[in-house]
Amino acid sequence: MEKLQAKWAEGKFVCVGLDSDTARLPARLLKGGVYPVMAQEEFNLKIINVTHDLVCAYKPNLAFYRGTEGKRVLRGTIQRIRSIAPGVVIILDAKWADIGNTNYGYAEEVFDWYGADAVTVHPYLGREAMMPFLERADKGVIVLCRTSNPGAGEFQDLPVWKDEYWDSARTRPLYQLVAKNVADSWNAVSNNCAVVVGATYPEELGVVRGIVGDMPILIPGIGAQGGDLEATLKNGFDSRGQGVIVNSSRDIIFASDGEDYAEAARAETQKLHDAITSFRVAA
Amino acid sequence: MEKLQAKWAEGKFVCVGLDSDTARLPARLLKGGVYPVMAQEEFNLKIINVTHDLVCAYKPNLAFYRGTEGKRVLRGTIQRIRSIAPGVVIILDAKWADIGNTNYGYAEEVFDWYGADAVTVHPYLGREAMMPFLERADKGVIVLCRTSNPGAGEFQDLPVWKDEYWDSARTRPLYQLVAKNVADSWNAVSNNCAVVVGATYPEELGVVRGIVGDMPILIPGIGAQGGDLEATLKNGFDSRGQGVIVNSSRDIIFASDGEDYAEAARAETQKLHDAITSFRVAA
Repeated sequence: MEKLQAKWAEGKFVCVGLDSDTARLPARLLKGGVYPVMAQEEFNLKIINVTHDLVCAYKPNLAFYRGTEGKRVLRGTIQRIRSIAPGVVIILDAKWADIGNTNYGYAEEVFDWYGADAVTVHPYLGREAMMPFLERADKGVIVLCRTSNPGAGEFQDLPVWKDEYWDSARTRPLYQLVAKNVADSWNAVSNNCAVVVGATYPEELGVVRGIVGDMPILIPGIGAQGGDLEATLKNGFDSRGQGVIVNSSRDIIFASDGEDYAEAARAETQKLHDAITSFRVAA
Repeated sequence: MEKLQAKWAEGKFVCVGLDSDTARLPARLLKGGVYPVMAQEEFNLKIINVTHDLVCAYKPNLAFYRGTEGKRVLRGTIQRIRSIAPGVVIILDAKWADIGNTNYGYAEEVFDWYGADAVTVHPYLGREAMMPFLERADKGVIVLCRTSNPGAGEFQDLPVWKDEYWDSARTRPLYQLVAKNVADSWNAVSNNCAVVVGATYPEELGVVRGIVGDMPILIPGIGAQGGDLEATLKNGFDSRGQGVIVNSSRDIIFASDGEDYAEAARAETQKLHDAITSFRVAA
């Protein structure tokens, strides 16, 4: 949380999603019989080298680091970020959640073996199961609330009925209950929680901001998924004009599939950073 | 699904949970400076060797296979099960779920790299996101519905209100909506779905059985977590007296922490198998 606050104080809100799908790496990196994971490692390091002064966070998604070799690259990437840019927050986007006894294993893997600062988790098993994550006061727990995918509403929008609510509404969509429980109860354990709300749902983002106060919100879905930046910032900023981690993955890391992929990634990161800065100056 | 049906036809319903926590392996295996994962591999192979004729499935939980070495052991364990007992279903208990684009990575890892037959997943992102799993008609997708942990009800029991229901009830707990959507909609893609209901909630298990018809139900929580076997079977069996995958993990694999751990695991597996058989004969 302190690392994040320091980056926000520097005016940095961009998170680069290191979804370095080996099938989409630049052709040159794959030449000469190089095993894809070696290419993946080189790719990540180049992207990190040219973007780390502009970002508040990196977010590698576990699904793109397959097999034992992929895990080795992921761990190496995280360690490299720690050494090149120790102030930048490292979020492992793993979307884990198991029962309590089992979550100790995941908490150990993500925080101690990979060395990440924060992890994304599913809310479905409830706070009691998530204590192994919540107890780690020096690490972040980022709970899925309103996800960015088109079908997110199947369960997340279901109207939950309660006799007594925090206001007079008789029903609230499930995702709002998740936001409220995380803010009021999960976060009370160690004050280390955040929530995920997709940029593809700016209205819901505004509602969640109203529920969670100044809690950080991780916002994926800008760019390739179609999220609108201005609506996102308008609804996502907290009372101090901060509180957001604006993630862009494919739009940045695959901005070019040629030799200039790193320069193109830098340019896209700069563009997003500048757009956020302009919005803040205007607001 | 065919492998499962064949095992049920043989009267086998036990699933051994390979939650082979390296911290709990027998002392002898850890002697002589052997790295824990080597011990973990030997431990799993021994357990598999002595139990495979009694079970319908094995369920390793990903959280207990940490780091690159753990992943190698897990893959080796799965491949060994395929070779020793090709008819036994292998469920990777990973509890994964991401957006659609990303789930292709997970589906490839679990089914093609690990070589598992089925995977557990969270429902929260909805069917649309889960298509990469659901499209794999020859593989199983086991959706968390009512989990076995004490705090499962925080979200799973929330009363969802709907104008029009499948019956006259005005609200239904969320977990029942999950069961209904999986049975009616998710399973329509490839007829490859199952749900998870903890043995610690036998009443809820009966309700879910009523909703999902003859769909398989994976039932963790027998043994160490306190689930009652008789109530579980009474409420869990489908109309043919089948349909359940009864998982026991710690009670079987850590039945003894001495030299006789494999024999003790065999005895516990036999005990659970016999108890299920007795119940079926009586019923």
